[in-house]
Amino acid sequence: MKTLIINCGSSSLKYKLINMVDEKDIVSGLVERIGLDGAKLVQKNEIGEKHIIEKEIKNHKDAVELVLNTLTDIKVGVIKSMDEIIAVGHRVVHGGEKYSSSIIIDEEVIEYLNECSKLAPLHNPANITGIKACQSLMPNTKMVAVFDTAFHGTLPEKAYIYAIDYNLYKNHKIRKYGFHGTSHKYVAHKVSEAMGKDIKDLKIISCHLGNGASISAIKGGECIDTTMGFTPLAGVPMGTRSGNIDPSIIPFLVENCGYSIEEVSEALNKKSGVLGISGVSSDFRDIENAALKGDKRAQLALDIFHYRIRAEIGSFIVNMGGVDVILFTAGVGENSPETREECLKGLEFLGLKLDKEKNKVRGKLSEISKEDSIVKAYVVPTNEELMIAKETLALVK
Amino acid sequence: MKTLIINCGSSSLKYKLINMVDEKDIVSGLVERIGLDGAKLVQKNEIGEKHIIEKEIKNHKDAVELVLNTLTDIKVGVIKSMDEIIAVGHRVVHGGEKYSSSIIIDEEVIEYLNECSKLAPLHNPANITGIKACQSLMPNTKMVAVFDTAFHGTLPEKAYIYAIDYNLYKNHKIRKYGFHGTSHKYVAHKVSEAMGKDIKDLKIISCHLGNGASISAIKGGECIDTTMGFTPLAGVPMGTRSGNIDPSIIPFLVENCGYSIEEVSEALNKKSGVLGISGVSSDFRDIENAALKGDKRAQLALDIFHYRIRAEIGSFIVNMGGVDVILFTAGVGENSPETREECLKGLEFLGLKLDKEKNKVRGKLSEISKEDSIVKAYVVPTNEELMIAKETLALVK
Repeated sequence: MKTLIINCGSSSLKYKLINMVDEKDIVSGLVERIGLDGAKLVQKNEIGEKHIIEKEIKNHKDAVELVLNTLTDIKVGVIKSMDEIIAVGHRVVHGGEKYSSSIIIDEEVIEYLNECSKLAPLHNPANITGIKACQSLMPNTKMVAVFDTAFHGTLPEKAYIYAIDYNLYKNHKIRKYGFHGTSHKYVAHKVSEAMGKDIKDLKIISCHLGNGASISAIKGGECIDTTMGFTPLAGVPMGTRSGNIDPSIIPFLVENCGYSIEEVSEALNKKSGVLGISGVSSDFRDIENAALKGDKRAQLALDIFHYRIRAEIGSFIVNMGGVDVILFTAGVGENSPETREECLKGLEFLGLKLDKEKNKVRGKLSEISKEDSIVKAYVVPTNEELMIAKETLALVK
Repeated sequence: MKTLIINCGSSSLKYKLINMVDEKDIVSGLVERIGLDGAKLVQKNEIGEKHIIEKEIKNHKDAVELVLNTLTDIKVGVIKSMDEIIAVGHRVVHGGEKYSSSIIIDEEVIEYLNECSKLAPLHNPANITGIKACQSLMPNTKMVAVFDTAFHGTLPEKAYIYAIDYNLYKNHKIRKYGFHGTSHKYVAHKVSEAMGKDIKDLKIISCHLGNGASISAIKGGECIDTTMGFTPLAGVPMGTRSGNIDPSIIPFLVENCGYSIEEVSEALNKKSGVLGISGVSSDFRDIENAALKGDKRAQLALDIFHYRIRAEIGSFIVNMGGVDVILFTAGVGENSPETREECLKGLEFLGLKLDKEKNKVRGKLSEISKEDSIVKAYVVPTNEELMIAKETLALVK
């Protein structure tokens, strides 16, 4: 019942081996700087001991091989042979319109993922490389693709069609897809369990706030809207991403400020968000510290972040016709009581009462609203890898 | 007490002569195709009689001259001499950051409006042309500029700063300005009067829904947020404008779909919105008719329009910490009961009860919510020209 989870980036590979009997991590690891100088693997076991290997790692196949060797190593290994791994679950960013649930990988799947690469040029090619590397080294092990977009497959047309020429959807598949789906799905189910309710009876707003941030509206267990869009740039401001802006700003930057279209993309993805406003950092802890010391632009960055999140919460409340629970997850959502307090301001009129004492919690599943709060608020630590492992196991069984 | 209102477009000039004693229009008119073949002036008097002049109209100065001659004409004129006009109020689209209220026009004002032309290249140059034409023909009459952006001058930083490099605001004045301000201000005051309340005690959401559409949040008489942004492209979908989209769509169109940046601007401003989705028309009446006949994309266009308006209403409710009244104005807002009903769906949980009978009203100031509705809903016909005349008179007195 050991499941390996692989999450490939362009020069990195994150992995986890999970024992699905108790849903605990056996080991987790990261291979960095694949194909570059200074490549290394860092593996942590369940009690936090680190094992580091520094060596040349030419490509993703080498990286997967190193991972498998480390997992089965006589000294630091945790399994005797690769046969103990019953399946590999791959995180894949973009499943396009076709895959609204996880799927066992075959040739046809890989072909479609290649097609989707145009929609996620930074992520899907790396994901595919990781899948192929695993396939060549573990030819008899079943592989499952779990998509970041899949949970949003239930979005209704009115939520996913942009108000642009409809042919751009028909011919180029330009529509809202949404991301962070595995996380939103996991925490939505977790909060339902914690509340002792059937997810089918709940209206949930899930705020995944990390360096990337997205908010989803989940009604009766189905995602009905989410803030990210065609790409992960849209929605609320993030660490370095702008979120929504007046689209006219882009032609203005090109025509009046000397930007090329590539530079605009770069600026909106890498130099905007709370980094762009504050000029301080993309890390919310740095910005909170600077704001505490009186940095006005750092405070403004936080104010805008909270303001825009409240706006999205409000839009989802109206479009769900109410809300039962608002939850916070991911780095900032799990660990910043200030962020949660600010994001819930203005909701008192709906009967949401934050419990400031309970809200001091960090990184632990916990209710943070008062007992008599009509709308509930929760912190729910996310665990995308466990969700991927569960979906993988469900399919290969 | 007769005030002339001038609204200059690039090849048109709208005007109204208003008697400020009873706030009634004396005449209204439109000069079309200035500088083009087939130019004409159409003037309507208070009982709806039309007077049409077809002749060559070389430029805006010619147009203003023709307007003044028509107003003082022995047969169809309504005033004996231009001296009866105590002031001219000019609608100016963009007042930049400097003008958050109306102002008497002098050389310095014109210079600043020229600076703002970069921010409103289609509108401000035409507005300035109209001002200069009036000045040369009525050198002793006071002129006032009333800005479409002014009412939004009270927006807090967190609402008007985009989550992009802060230097783009500092150096290029890229920020949210908001438009339709004169209309939002007028209807917000009107609805307060109708409710018998002080505007200072109200939280108002004003939905200006015409071929252009914007929604404003007005708290204690001050506009605290609005959906249009740096330009009138942003916010909710409109007749031909996209409203907000994932900004990444623009680089995608350029890099993958063969668009130039100019073509993207053109597409988002002229071929998007409900026209782009439906493929039918930019006129909401055509789309409603097509949808009634079973056209699915026409229905989708309406669904998206309503859905996105509800989303903005929700975001403003949360960021005002509640709402007392939601009002509808402009062509679609005043005349489409279906639009109003759909835009208010999902608000029942806040105690808003629409009165379907009362909601059949068209173009008349009227409450459309039930007597026991906690949140009120109104139709409030807008009158930008009267608002401009009032502001003009207040300044020149």
